[in-house]
Amino acid sequence: MVELYITILGCGSAKPTLRHHTSSQIVSRLGELYMIDCGEGTQRQFHKFGFHEGQLGNIFISHAHGDHCLGLIGLLSSMSLNSRYRSLNIYIPADFEQMLRAQIDFFMPHAEYDIRIYPIDCQEPTLIHSDTHFEVTAFPLHHRVPCYGFLFQERQGKRHIKPEVIEKYNIPYPKIDLIKMGYDFTTADGQAIPNEELTTPPTPTRSYAYLSDTQPMKEYVKLLQGVDLLYHDATYCEGDEQLAFQYDHSTASQAAEFAQKCNAGKLILGHFSSRYDSEEWLLEHAVKHFPHTILADEGLNVKIVDKTANGAVFIEWRG
Amino acid sequence: MVELYITILGCGSAKPTLRHHTSSQIVSRLGELYMIDCGEGTQRQFHKFGFHEGQLGNIFISHAHGDHCLGLIGLLSSMSLNSRYRSLNIYIPADFEQMLRAQIDFFMPHAEYDIRIYPIDCQEPTLIHSDTHFEVTAFPLHHRVPCYGFLFQERQGKRHIKPEVIEKYNIPYPKIDLIKMGYDFTTADGQAIPNEELTTPPTPTRSYAYLSDTQPMKEYVKLLQGVDLLYHDATYCEGDEQLAFQYDHSTASQAAEFAQKCNAGKLILGHFSSRYDSEEWLLEHAVKHFPHTILADEGLNVKIVDKTANGAVFIEWRG
Repeated sequence: MVELYITILGCGSAKPTLRHHTSSQIVSRLGELYMIDCGEGTQRQFHKFGFHEGQLGNIFISHAHGDHCLGLIGLLSSMSLNSRYRSLNIYIPADFEQMLRAQIDFFMPHAEYDIRIYPIDCQEPTLIHSDTHFEVTAFPLHHRVPCYGFLFQERQGKRHIKPEVIEKYNIPYPKIDLIKMGYDFTTADGQAIPNEELTTPPTPTRSYAYLSDTQPMKEYVKLLQGVDLLYHDATYCEGDEQLAFQYDHSTASQAAEFAQKCNAGKLILGHFSSRYDSEEWLLEHAVKHFPHTILADEGLNVKIVDKTANGAVFIEWRG
Repeated sequence: MVELYITILGCGSAKPTLRHHTSSQIVSRLGELYMIDCGEGTQRQFHKFGFHEGQLGNIFISHAHGDHCLGLIGLLSSMSLNSRYRSLNIYIPADFEQMLRAQIDFFMPHAEYDIRIYPIDCQEPTLIHSDTHFEVTAFPLHHRVPCYGFLFQERQGKRHIKPEVIEKYNIPYPKIDLIKMGYDFTTADGQAIPNEELTTPPTPTRSYAYLSDTQPMKEYVKLLQGVDLLYHDATYCEGDEQLAFQYDHSTASQAAEFAQKCNAGKLILGHFSSRYDSEEWLLEHAVKHFPHTILADEGLNVKIVDKTANGAVFIEWRG
């Protein structure tokens, strides 16, 4: 399957620590990059882990708290200094639009590339972006300010033509793409060959969901049913449910329960509170509910390498 | 002499690199901290090098280019999250005031500590801050936007009373502070003792000047005559004078020539362009003009430990 992986640039929460950077991550498919959230210092993390600005075409901001968006204006400015010409789409909660435009006007009056700002303002899951790689759906989360989760669904590819049928039915080259798209084929002597005989189904699509910052959102179990990879707010540890509720976050156990209900392939815990010296406790609690759980960390990459009848197959490595 | 040193948090220029952080530094006297400039990621550098937010009472921003001020709102927000109660003075060029206030209103609506913003708008060197440690003078630099240098002059201490005269003239305790302030003393039997006989001069004061970003500023040779420690824009190397002129910066050699004219005690070169893989070339050229030159680097500390008839004595170490 074509390359598809995510990279954690930062997985800390609002109070700064030396252990974690503030929120940002990259979804990468065939070298095309999608950034989710952009806390202060993201541009440095982006370069540290080997990405290039020209690969980045779309940025998605979950909400307008500083630890999720204060790095945006610096990244945009640097891309201008680096003579970017590719246009850039930025999807942001609507309440952030005026401030972002003011920052762009003030800090980068000479920007020469096209920055397209798309405010998100929806009460239900809504398709906000579509391209050759993904359809991206935003869905409102439960946080102190307007905040959105994002579901990346890989676009359905074409059917695969069986190699042997091309010679067998003497299929001319221009017809092959039509057959991949599902059309039947009629041979030179008028024999109609149904598409099912000529092709095998398309490669299964993969999906990734990002939910941070939020209280547990059981109402999205259906939307995210069978999601391959899930990143979920795990700001607090079991026992701190009251704090999690008070500040509109989740515990690691709540994240794992949600992943279990969604039948996710794998869960990444993130957005760690500065109050814990280590996240091992969070993991210990979470795996009791959902064994396929790992901890986010700066430089962690998780690739969805295959999809079988038993679900997705992942590999992880550190950048 | 009481502890006085500066610490480099970042000495790169606008284009991000993995070698240097954007501009910020700390002036530290007896544990009281003064920050100059605050590029993106400064709060992380601040903590990395062991400083505490409660020590910081004053921030000085040279100009409103992102690499000198984009970290400010993140630092202010974090201090609010960390329950800061001490008030904070922020000195900024006047053209940055509206944006900074808008950022504060938007990103930290619940801030409970007192942020006092003092816009700088002067055509001549002007005293902008005074406390028990320093008098700070702002002076306009030559850059593309309103930009100021800062001169930190240690406050003149009191004269030192000679230990032996207290017993000799039977000086009562309440009079000692008056004598240190320069008053004469009259003994119980009416003998007038001039102050010069009772005291030695106060400890020499020390000074630090920050000039970045700017073209060379010969008009300040008089203002900065005899400055102990000087940090100067050295964005470009000798041979790139035309670029330096075009972008309103200096070469390392121009910085060294200026330090030599000022009879500075020591010069720190900084604000390095991303175009050079190493700053050793800059240093090589600079020392030809002014031998007491060093390169800035993240974590560099320079302490002014003493002042003798031959000038200031420094020690340097890496944090």
